[in-house]
Amino acid sequence: MAQPLRIGMIGYGFMGRAHSNGYNRVKDFFDLEYLPVLQAVAARDPAKAQAFADRWGYKRVETDWRKLVASDDIDAIDICTPNNLHAEIAIEAARHGKAILCEKPLSMDAAEGEKMCAAVEKAGVANMVWYNYRRIPAVTFAKNIIDSGKLGRIFHYRAEFLQDWTISADLPQGGAALWRLDAAAAGSGVTGDLLAHCIDTALWLNGAVSDVTAMTETFVKERKHQLTGKVEPVTIDDACSFLCHFKNGSLGLFESTRYARGHKALYTFEINGENMSLKWDLSDLHRLQVFDYNDAGPMRGWKSIHVTDSDHPYMDKWWVPGLAIGYEHSFVHQVADFLECYAKKQPAHPTFRDALETQKVCDAVLSSAKSHQWVGVE
Amino acid sequence: MAQPLRIGMIGYGFMGRAHSNGYNRVKDFFDLEYLPVLQAVAARDPAKAQAFADRWGYKRVETDWRKLVASDDIDAIDICTPNNLHAEIAIEAARHGKAILCEKPLSMDAAEGEKMCAAVEKAGVANMVWYNYRRIPAVTFAKNIIDSGKLGRIFHYRAEFLQDWTISADLPQGGAALWRLDAAAAGSGVTGDLLAHCIDTALWLNGAVSDVTAMTETFVKERKHQLTGKVEPVTIDDACSFLCHFKNGSLGLFESTRYARGHKALYTFEINGENMSLKWDLSDLHRLQVFDYNDAGPMRGWKSIHVTDSDHPYMDKWWVPGLAIGYEHSFVHQVADFLECYAKKQPAHPTFRDALETQKVCDAVLSSAKSHQWVGVE
Amino acid sequence: MAQPLRIGMIGYGFMGRAHSNGYNRVKDFFDLEYLPVLQAVAARDPAKAQAFADRWGYKRVETDWRKLVASDDIDAIDICTPNNLHAEIAIEAARHGKAILCEKPLSMDAAEGEKMCAAVEKAGVANMVWYNYRRIPAVTFAKNIIDSGKLGRIFHYRAEFLQDWTISADLPQGGAALWRLDAAAAGSGVTGDLLAHCIDTALWLNGAVSDVTAMTETFVKERKHQLTGKVEPVTIDDACSFLCHFKNGSLGLFESTRYARGHKALYTFEINGENMSLKWDLSDLHRLQVFDYNDAGPMRGWKSIHVTDSDHPYMDKWWVPGLAIGYEHSFVHQVADFLECYAKKQPAHPTFRDALETQKVCDAVLSSAKSHQWVGVE
Amino acid sequence: MAQPLRIGMIGYGFMGRAHSNGYNRVKDFFDLEYLPVLQAVAARDPAKAQAFADRWGYKRVETDWRKLVASDDIDAIDICTPNNLHAEIAIEAARHGKAILCEKPLSMDAAEGEKMCAAVEKAGVANMVWYNYRRIPAVTFAKNIIDSGKLGRIFHYRAEFLQDWTISADLPQGGAALWRLDAAAAGSGVTGDLLAHCIDTALWLNGAVSDVTAMTETFVKERKHQLTGKVEPVTIDDACSFLCHFKNGSLGLFESTRYARGHKALYTFEINGENMSLKWDLSDLHRLQVFDYNDAGPMRGWKSIHVTDSDHPYMDKWWVPGLAIGYEHSFVHQVADFLECYAKKQPAHPTFRDALETQKVCDAVLSSAKSHQWVGVE
Repeated sequence: MAQPLRIGMIGYGFMGRAHSNGYNRVKDFFDLEYLPVLQAVAARDPAKAQAFADRWGYKRVETDWRKLVASDDIDAIDICTPNNLHAEIAIEAARHGKAILCEKPLSMDAAEGEKMCAAVEKAGVANMVWYNYRRIPAVTFAKNIIDSGKLGRIFHYRAEFLQDWTISADLPQGGAALWRLDAAAAGSGVTGDLLAHCIDTALWLNGAVSDVTAMTETFVKERKHQLTGKVEPVTIDDACSFLCHFKNGSLGLFESTRYARGHKALYTFEINGENMSLKWDLSDLHRLQVFDYNDAGPMRGWKSIHVTDSDHPYMDKWWVPGLAIGYEHSFVHQVADFLECYAKKQPAHPTFRDALETQKVCDAVLSSAKSHQWVGVE
Repeated sequence: MAQPLRIGMIGYGFMGRAHSNGYNRVKDFFDLEYLPVLQAVAARDPAKAQAFADRWGYKRVETDWRKLVASDDIDAIDICTPNNLHAEIAIEAARHGKAILCEKPLSMDAAEGEKMCAAVEKAGVANMVWYNYRRIPAVTFAKNIIDSGKLGRIFHYRAEFLQDWTISADLPQGGAALWRLDAAAAGSGVTGDLLAHCIDTALWLNGAVSDVTAMTETFVKERKHQLTGKVEPVTIDDACSFLCHFKNGSLGLFESTRYARGHKALYTFEINGENMSLKWDLSDLHRLQVFDYNDAGPMRGWKSIHVTDSDHPYMDKWWVPGLAIGYEHSFVHQVADFLECYAKKQPAHPTFRDALETQKVCDAVLSSAKSHQWVGVE
Repeated sequence: MAQPLRIGMIGYGFMGRAHSNGYNRVKDFFDLEYLPVLQAVAARDPAKAQAFADRWGYKRVETDWRKLVASDDIDAIDICTPNNLHAEIAIEAARHGKAILCEKPLSMDAAEGEKMCAAVEKAGVANMVWYNYRRIPAVTFAKNIIDSGKLGRIFHYRAEFLQDWTISADLPQGGAALWRLDAAAAGSGVTGDLLAHCIDTALWLNGAVSDVTAMTETFVKERKHQLTGKVEPVTIDDACSFLCHFKNGSLGLFESTRYARGHKALYTFEINGENMSLKWDLSDLHRLQVFDYNDAGPMRGWKSIHVTDSDHPYMDKWWVPGLAIGYEHSFVHQVADFLECYAKKQPAHPTFRDALETQKVCDAVLSSAKSHQWVGVE
Repeated sequence: MAQPLRIGMIGYGFMGRAHSNGYNRVKDFFDLEYLPVLQAVAARDPAKAQAFADRWGYKRVETDWRKLVASDDIDAIDICTPNNLHAEIAIEAARHGKAILCEKPLSMDAAEGEKMCAAVEKAGVANMVWYNYRRIPAVTFAKNIIDSGKLGRIFHYRAEFLQDWTISADLPQGGAALWRLDAAAAGSGVTGDLLAHCIDTALWLNGAVSDVTAMTETFVKERKHQLTGKVEPVTIDDACSFLCHFKNGSLGLFESTRYARGHKALYTFEINGENMSLKWDLSDLHRLQVFDYNDAGPMRGWKSIHVTDSDHPYMDKWWVPGLAIGYEHSFVHQVADFLECYAKKQPAHPTFRDALETQKVCDAVLSSAKSHQWVGVE
């Protein structure tokens, strides 16, 4: 009989839904020692909190997150707020000895992230950041292949995250659904929102980054602010790209934007090794492209592996070979892995400290974009 | 407050899981007047039934399906047994006034299917067959485009369903997981299992079929039978293809097999109209390919529509544009549509009678393969 | 120093251009004992013949093909006329001891083809039919792989040739550029024009066909005839598909049409073997798709081989790895192979007799479509 | 009757072949006032020069390029030497009043290129640089679409040119076929060889670049030199990437390398405009990908245009719709365009001065890579 891990969720937006779905589904597909119980959700607006609780099955609601993190009936806090609240909540939750699952990016900047790490490490609480793309089976499979050493010396890593949803100048900034356009709430624009995903995967697959040269742009300079009703300068980055050196000697190239017409969520990465190269693309997330130089000469080519077979990561839990799962399953996998680590008292990656590394690269990128200089990663 | 529709599930295999998942998830994403309650599951083996019930949240178990269909606490029977039990269960369930959701194919043959239709129609009970691919958003979108008349006169329809899981001669036939290889349990091989899906979609998208010429093959002639332990002749069709005329004057070409090395579940269809053509492929189920002759001459081409936007069928219920859902969501959609029709006392398609049309084509196909003659569809 | 093979070309249409280009280019890329000399072109219209000769470098023109085939300054006759003239010209050319390169299909039917074979074999002259797709490097590469035995037992072969250029009912039939729509000149519609290509490749790759069941259709029943100026019944087949058994026990499925909106020249084939499957597509002719079951389990997938490397067939003659050649190069390759065989006094395939096998399948297909019966291939 | 333009070719390597093929084929497909005559080829090794002349039909050979450029029987000089000879030859040829077709990149650096421009402009001779990718039909088509204004405001331009042929540390540098690895002969590594193509296309499609930040790398530090026989430091760049601002306000991202395992010649570009985006890829050079935001909402997607129709650039000269041409045809097109401009006494683009702009960007890129600073483009 599984033991309960009572979840206290803070926030009810897109990520609140994605995490709740992860909690609700995990028991139907995974055999685990701990299972999540949706104990309570906290949000300032009680009606919205209640509607969310009804939908997903949370037992009760809170309108003050401080009460939630202090509450005895909660084992783990899930932080799904805008970025500017992550640190305060996490530090307070750690103080109350709660396990913490924090939406990415970890923090507004590395300094803040460092405090969060210190807090959870001092409290000795389980902690994890929701860089969910690590748990797309094709991405996990890429990690396994890389770890096997099959790629040989790495020469190149490139990634991009392209969207197009903010092209219209009529789109307002700030407020409920649009806090990602407000630097005060989000810390940065695409850097923390999109590039952070690319960087997390890159550090995981290819190791640490040494230094970067970056460029940011804000294409639409002013937008009406939803909260003030006034036209105000836009202070986030609409686009951000950078070049870098990895510590393993390979070269990196990263791009993110919300102005790439035709791309809703095109997150791609490619890694080129001496003996093998790998490519992946969120638009067709169930496929991994592999080029193997060890194939016989004329038989070489890019292979599209349909990562839906029972010997692919996580896929034995789902349906039958050939049948794809989707975006949301990455959260189910992350819940399952977290619970398994929780039972074993092992860290579930990416931990806060893992995610801090991504934050440091983001900081260097934003700093370089401002200074027009190469900037070392701490 | 939603009203309960108490489900009695019979069977606990692959489809039992897929349907149960559909029931369990629908409330988190759809707003419905009725919501499913997993009341009981019936299976001969009580331990397996209990394990399944525990996993998915069924309140109780039965070992005799006759008790289940007669039980007062059940509103709807879901039939997930091997094909040879569909008719008997459905007729008995109808007699008890239960709504019926029957796994495809409807029946062992059209004659049996006709009896099932008569039974549900006489009893006036809601009835539906789980041809789930209609509810893949890209397929539903194809249907909407076709219904708009944009394709003009139709010339061609082609579909194939290719698998490769029975190539090994060491694979046994019959028994629990392998009843699909046993004609006594399945009625036919790929015809009822795979072609039936292709035919259901075709009839839905392109209307009725007039006549067929078909070919079947059994590549591996003998296999050990799991139940008897003896090597026995294989009596199912391993591969089946046919040519046909549709009543709208277009030509059809269909193929199915479990011997197409490299394809786990490649269900594709293409329809060619005077002004537009459409293509779809289960391997990349979130995409619809469209060629529009009305585009300006040099700008014509095959467009790959990523069917993940909020104005695509069902997609407003899920995540944000660009993020794919998977195979299992087709069942959630079918549950949602069934419940909505149930509330409105409208038929949910495909009804038993819709599915009977597919059965008639399957019968004609198998008859033609045996007689080596063109055979009219009743 | 290479010896000349003096070519007498009959016809100056699309194929006249493609062959002439083959002759003109071969010396720049291949080292051969014989090289073609464009000696003369014959066509009824002297002005058009002269214009063609000027363009391509033919030394002189004839308006009567009989004079050309009798002429002492000609070593080889290239037949690029409509199909209804192939036999008469070939038989007469053989009588004069000329080598013969005949455009496909060989003949109007197998009976006529048989006479052509008898004539060239009696005369002992070199003979070849222009089934050029065999010499697309990716197709030749497929042949090499199949001949290596890597595929194991073959289960399935499927091919289609889809076009869309005759959908408009306003298109006339017959006359210069449109003789392919006139059964009197072409013998058949898509069967001889498109299916013949599919069949030639299939026989080459997968061996002989035993029997067929076929379906043809003429979608537009009447068209204005270019020569008579009157609206006349269309007597060609607009679409033709068939199922068949190959003698090796595998199943075949073929389709051809000029009514598949969106496809200009989509010739595809796929062959499924026990251990390997191959796919090819004329729209991306420089790629071969390969699925190799011998790859390690989770690493299996469809590999897209860019057939442009120096160890791929013919490619060492052209540019550098990665740079594609096109459709026309298949004719250059066929010229080169013909000349090499000519020097060695070996048959250049497909010979007339090879092509007669394709003709027999075409005859069986058309016969089956008429009789609505399975028809054996002679 | 066409007039002759007598070509004097210098060099006989890969590009010598590609240009010669362009000259030899143009008359078979284009109607032009001037036609090329292959008058002479110059190369130091007389045997190799003669073999080349025999192959391609040059009437005579020279072993001293100075004689060739001074010769009365030559109208135009084609420079296919290593880069370090471009300037000297071009300036001398201009002095003799010859038209000049110079292989790319124009020069070793912008200063040298400026002298070349001055020389041809002072002499008033026709001049052109072989940035052949502009004349791939899909690329020309992209240019036409962009010029139509359909893209609206441009936000992003990205391009990469990825190869993998120098990964082996055993590959020597310098000498005949490997001068591209020798900085003394080539000026730079991938920057002048690959990036120059990307930059030429970018400037043509998206206008001038303001400033850049760049990174280069030499992965294999020492290689045996073919000429000296000694292991020597490698002084070229193996990889080079850069970020930039275009003067139209859009952001650029460029990468080139010879260490991207799996890519033989993957030149891709993508341009994102407010209303439309375009993508192209040399590996499938006959396709242009287009996303049109003006399509009806749910019908939006990336369209793959098979640029083989008669209303696509250059394609009416070749075969029939659907049949692809290849890499080499870009040179035929460039010859045809040059000859047409020559007849009209108009500049044929890219002229030396056009190509000088690319050189300036290359200089800025290499300077930035060295200084680790953003560098303005002159």
